Amino acid sequence: MNAHALLRLMKHRLEPVFFPRAIAVIGASRHKEKVGYAIMHNLVVNEYQGTLYPINPNAESVHSVKCYPSISEVPGPVDLAIIVVPAAYVLEVMEECGKKGVKGAVVITAGFKETGGKGETLERQLRAVVRKHGMAMIGPNCMGIINTHKDIQMDATFAPTPPLPGYISFMSQSGALGVGILDHATTLRLGINQFVSLGNKADVSGNDLLEYWQQDSNTKIILMYIENVGNPGNFLKIARRLTKKKPVIAVKSGKTEAGAKAALSHTASLAGSDVAVDALFHQCGVIRVDTIEELFDMAMAFSHQRLPKGKRVALVTDAGGPGIMATDVLVSMGMEIAHLKQDTLDEIRRHVVDEAIVSNPVDLTAHGNPDSYGHALDAVLRDDGVDSALAIFVPPLPHEEIPVAQAIWQTAKKHSKPVLCCFLTKNEESPGFVELVTNGIPAFLFPESAATALATMTRYAEYLKRDEGSFKSFKVQKSAAAKIIKSARDAGGQRVREKEALDLFKDYGFDVAKSLFAKNKEDALKCAKSIGYPVVVKAVGPKLIHKTEFKAVAVNIKSERALKATLNEMCGRFTSQGVETDGFLVQEMVKGGMECILGMKSYKHFGHLLAFGLGGIFVEYLKDVSFALAPATNMDAKRMIQSIKTYPLLKGARGGPAMDEASLQDAILRLSQLVEEQEGIEEIDVNPLIVLPDGKGCKVVDARVILR
Amino acid sequence: MNAHALLRLMKHRLEPVFFPRAIAVIGASRHKEKVGYAIMHNLVVNEYQGTLYPINPNAESVHSVKCYPSISEVPGPVDLAIIVVPAAYVLEVMEECGKKGVKGAVVITAGFKETGGKGETLERQLRAVVRKHGMAMIGPNCMGIINTHKDIQMDATFAPTPPLPGYISFMSQSGALGVGILDHATTLRLGINQFVSLGNKADVSGNDLLEYWQQDSNTKIILMYIENVGNPGNFLKIARRLTKKKPVIAVKSGKTEAGAKAALSHTASLAGSDVAVDALFHQCGVIRVDTIEELFDMAMAFSHQRLPKGKRVALVTDAGGPGIMATDVLVSMGMEIAHLKQDTLDEIRRHVVDEAIVSNPVDLTAHGNPDSYGHALDAVLRDDGVDSALAIFVPPLPHEEIPVAQAIWQTAKKHSKPVLCCFLTKNEESPGFVELVTNGIPAFLFPESAATALATMTRYAEYLKRDEGSFKSFKVQKSAAAKIIKSARDAGGQRVREKEALDLFKDYGFDVAKSLFAKNKEDALKCAKSIGYPVVVKAVGPKLIHKTEFKAVAVNIKSERALKATLNEMCGRFTSQGVETDGFLVQEMVKGGMECILGMKSYKHFGHLLAFGLGGIFVEYLKDVSFALAPATNMDAKRMIQSIKTYPLLKGARGGPAMDEASLQDAILRLSQLVEEQEGIEEIDVNPLIVLPDGKGCKVVDARVILR
Repeated sequence: MNAHALLRLMKHRLEPVFFPRAIAVIGASRHKEKVGYAIMHNLVVNEYQGTLYPINPNAESVHSVKCYPSISEVPGPVDLAIIVVPAAYVLEVMEECGKKGVKGAVVITAGFKETGGKGETLERQLRAVVRKHGMAMIGPNCMGIINTHKDIQMDATFAPTPPLPGYISFMSQSGALGVGILDHATTLRLGINQFVSLGNKADVSGNDLLEYWQQDSNTKIILMYIENVGNPGNFLKIARRLTKKKPVIAVKSGKTEAGAKAALSHTASLAGSDVAVDALFHQCGVIRVDTIEELFDMAMAFSHQRLPKGKRVALVTDAGGPGIMATDVLVSMGMEIAHLKQDTLDEIRRHVVDEAIVSNPVDLTAHGNPDSYGHALDAVLRDDGVDSALAIFVPPLPHEEIPVAQAIWQTAKKHSKPVLCCFLTKNEESPGFVELVTNGIPAFLFPESAATALATMTRYAEYLKRDEGSFKSFKVQKSAAAKIIKSARDAGGQRVREKEALDLFKDYGFDVAKSLFAKNKEDALKCAKSIGYPVVVKAVGPKLIHKTEFKAVAVNIKSERALKATLNEMCGRFTSQGVETDGFLVQEMVKGGMECILGMKSYKHFGHLLAFGLGGIFVEYLKDVSFALAPATNMDAKRMIQSIKTYPLLKGARGGPAMDEASLQDAILRLSQLVEEQEGIEEIDVNPLIVLPDGKGCKVVDARVILR
Repeated sequence: MNAHALLRLMKHRLEPVFFPRAIAVIGASRHKEKVGYAIMHNLVVNEYQGTLYPINPNAESVHSVKCYPSISEVPGPVDLAIIVVPAAYVLEVMEECGKKGVKGAVVITAGFKETGGKGETLERQLRAVVRKHGMAMIGPNCMGIINTHKDIQMDATFAPTPPLPGYISFMSQSGALGVGILDHATTLRLGINQFVSLGNKADVSGNDLLEYWQQDSNTKIILMYIENVGNPGNFLKIARRLTKKKPVIAVKSGKTEAGAKAALSHTASLAGSDVAVDALFHQCGVIRVDTIEELFDMAMAFSHQRLPKGKRVALVTDAGGPGIMATDVLVSMGMEIAHLKQDTLDEIRRHVVDEAIVSNPVDLTAHGNPDSYGHALDAVLRDDGVDSALAIFVPPLPHEEIPVAQAIWQTAKKHSKPVLCCFLTKNEESPGFVELVTNGIPAFLFPESAATALATMTRYAEYLKRDEGSFKSFKVQKSAAAKIIKSARDAGGQRVREKEALDLFKDYGFDVAKSLFAKNKEDALKCAKSIGYPVVVKAVGPKLIHKTEFKAVAVNIKSERALKATLNEMCGRFTSQGVETDGFLVQEMVKGGMECILGMKSYKHFGHLLAFGLGGIFVEYLKDVSFALAPATNMDAKRMIQSIKTYPLLKGARGGPAMDEASLQDAILRLSQLVEEQEGIEEIDVNPLIVLPDGKGCKVVDARVILR
């Protein structure tokens, strides 16, 4: 342990976890098949640079290291305890660690929250002990941690393959999957800085790690495998900042959890939790990948090369087919196939066979050799119309593999533009492949993977320049709104009643269509008079949730006479159907606008998901809806409006007037503020929100608010 | 060469290519770096079972085999010539082969059509020689062929790695890519029956190979890498039949070629050539994959296991994470996570640790071992609510890898249901992975790949049961229609004029809105009178293609007075704008229906692509359109109508009447017949085709027909 590490130790609560001067393995074992042995083994053989104390009352030594009966009896100070004793003893052991002054703990032991019931209680007690002593704990129910930093060299896992040192920090909510990933990462020569198996996240959360890794200079790329986000609001805040400095690449699983609970609102039926994850990651710049394999592909690309300055890519290949495959992917992901300059083409032509196709992609044909690869790559990288290059090699003659790989990396080194390589060989252990990855060139077996990785790097470079906008706080009637929600809850209902829901939106500064509640027919006629014809009338009652079904809405009623007739017809029908009515909502008829839907669905693990789209058939059959998580910035709101496919209709594409986009943006931000400030709202549908022509705003006509 | 092979030889024109009793390598070389040496080397070391004759006037022997100065001087009969001499000599050599009675040829030599100009001429001459002598030729410009059949053992390529024998036949339009694929296939232990590098397809086409492989009992799976389809009509016919017997898996590249030519019709702008490929493959049951990697994944799955009987899958895993990842993919691809019976769960419970989660997926946790894997897998396969199983293994302790793999394949062998496996290990050379694939279990490094493969097998099994429908031939006025097209072409135009286009559709039995052409205003009034009000009037003229732009259409004109006013307004405006008019099309106003669009775009390499959707904004902004290639069966037409997202609107979902779906199906089939029978039509838009309520048919209101 040197001075540098000592210094770090004082800075952050996680430093005792990652840079411990001494580690106690509590539950160390002499039995080779036990986890308590495997962890000792990994710590010892990977040459942990601090002092190791196995703790076991029944052993003299474990893996050649002197054993102590308990943590209290360890002679020197201990920074980190790795705990593998059975669940029943963990509390006691942790208490002892606290007293000893241990500041970090990794609890491998399972049998806590994941088992429900008693386990949950035990976990709460464990957290209390940890917090009481000001400790930081990873787990329980995890597979351990790794820090490859040369000052520490700690592999406190029972993973079979130690990772290579490097700059990737990686957290996994599935321990076994994490270990599998580390295993395969070694084949790909990907270097790991720190690895954490998160386990149950009883104390240290994913967010804590993100904050720690943000300030850790050895972490250049962050990988995550996560199944849920503990505190989405916090995640959004931390990640928005972090991703502007370091790429964060995540696999989020559990897509099909969505829809497990029946959805009460329209928004909820559109927005699965997976949509929420997409929105969350998109907003805060986390690069989401769909598969574990893509996680590797991105790690490969981002860990070796700097980011491209633009979208223009040049391809150099020795086979047409994979060149086309790569081009397809690149173009579909928004990249541009660079237009090479005449000088560049001439330069390439001088070094290739006659059959070569000198354009972009440059096809060297099966005659491609180290010389032609080197020259062609050099020429395209020199071309100032090129931002990045993709070299593709299908080895026709095996002995050329290494020289071609050498020509590629040596040429790439001379330039500052990123170069990626597809090496379609036997596998990742092929000599050419190894030559590339050990010399800083990201290599991929398949052209599509290489192309996807390059396009993703380019998108990330664009994200770094993206304007994230700012948050806005409106002056609203917060407590009046809270009262509406409270009284709805006190009344025992899950829904806020029609009129009150509209009032809630009024309290948040929305323009609401003039609405009056009428207890009976006579009252309704008075209300209509005060609002002014034409009006809309909606029957209200406990069964009348799906109003169209009961024909409980009549629009564009132009006169008192017409209203009378409508009310009589409705009442007659409801009486014969045995449907109870509480009264009628009489509303102004909003004309000349376009129907939109604005909604919200709350997710435990992802926060408040806002939704926007055009109403009616667009939302019903075409699901043309965009999403963002609250709190949304003005740029998030703008993106939501402009990313629906029917946006041209809002702008007046079919000969109509352009609608008031600014007022929609305002409405989204107000909704964001509402759901952030008012607790306990589960779902919201503002349907329709009628947007009027430019300058005339938008009006809430109907709102459904469902409480948790 | 045995009797069996001799027998085959007489059956098919490709038999001399795949089962030659003697091969001449024309252009064989003693120089190790030359293709003429590499091919000799591959033939010799892979133990070709016939007689080999290297041809080279300047050598005594090549690779220890006696050389002849020319094919004519070879003492015995020769079935197949492999030609590697320079392009300039190929014609002469082929002529000599023909005279010698050689019936098969593989031309490796490049410098033909792919180089344009003289090369194209040379290729035409080459084909003429080949056809004159009744030969079958692969290439030119290819990388050779392979047949691993034990009677022949022919590797006539210059690929570095000989493939393992097996049941996959594989054609590649990119030679180099094909070789790269063979190389990687060996790592995956995938066995190849025959491989063909197609080259320029001057004689033997992809379709020829499909027909050959259909009757070849050693071909059980067909893989294709193709860049275009030479004769799509033929392909559709052959593949529809073939895919009901053997799975055909294809990577089609060149997606981004689409849109290279400016599109004149709406249909053309919607339908890229890639959409055409999707439609083609979907119609004829070819399994399309997006990446080369997926090609391997499918080959892995289909070559080892029988097809599942249904969608219900059981998962057995030792880690939650990959189980969730696989479940996500399975569900998103339409699979069902099987509901396991209580007996099954009880049986599993008896063999697992307490922490195991016994539901579906069965999570054995990191304690998963050969015993628990074996029992759990056996139990789920016994369950008659399960159609297939996916085993996932992340090795926590390396020494368990092989025993777990053994438990999996041995259990799978006892059942007839398919079992696939994800083995998240270092790489495909890991001992457990090898143990699985050499014992008939498809193995994948990543859970998503395994899940995708299983779901694809299940879809293919469903396809085998799919009703493909039948073709319908309507009685039409074929020659009258041909006259319309001819006269439009004779007039030098690329477009058939409005009125004639409508007549064309009338000739094909479409119900066309009553339409009369009026030369001037007075005439228009007469036409309207004879049609009956309300009418639609459209100004016709050379510049008036985009009618809305010029406000050249007026609808729902209810009286003679209104028509007069409209005509005056239009004419006045056109005069002041300097827009010429030829006259007016006066049409009946079709009311009470729904606007649809029916279109066609012709592709050289894919045939006639039909398109169907709802008109207006649905097609313009939402691109809610479905496609099929002509000739379409009634089931294809039905699928087109029912697969648009707005189909519920057609069925009257928003309170309207259900529209006449049968008449739309009829219209699609008539359009299919029209474009198949009438040559030279490039694009068609029937926009709108107005479909009326059930039983009332549909009416063509406007049709744009563009000629090649």
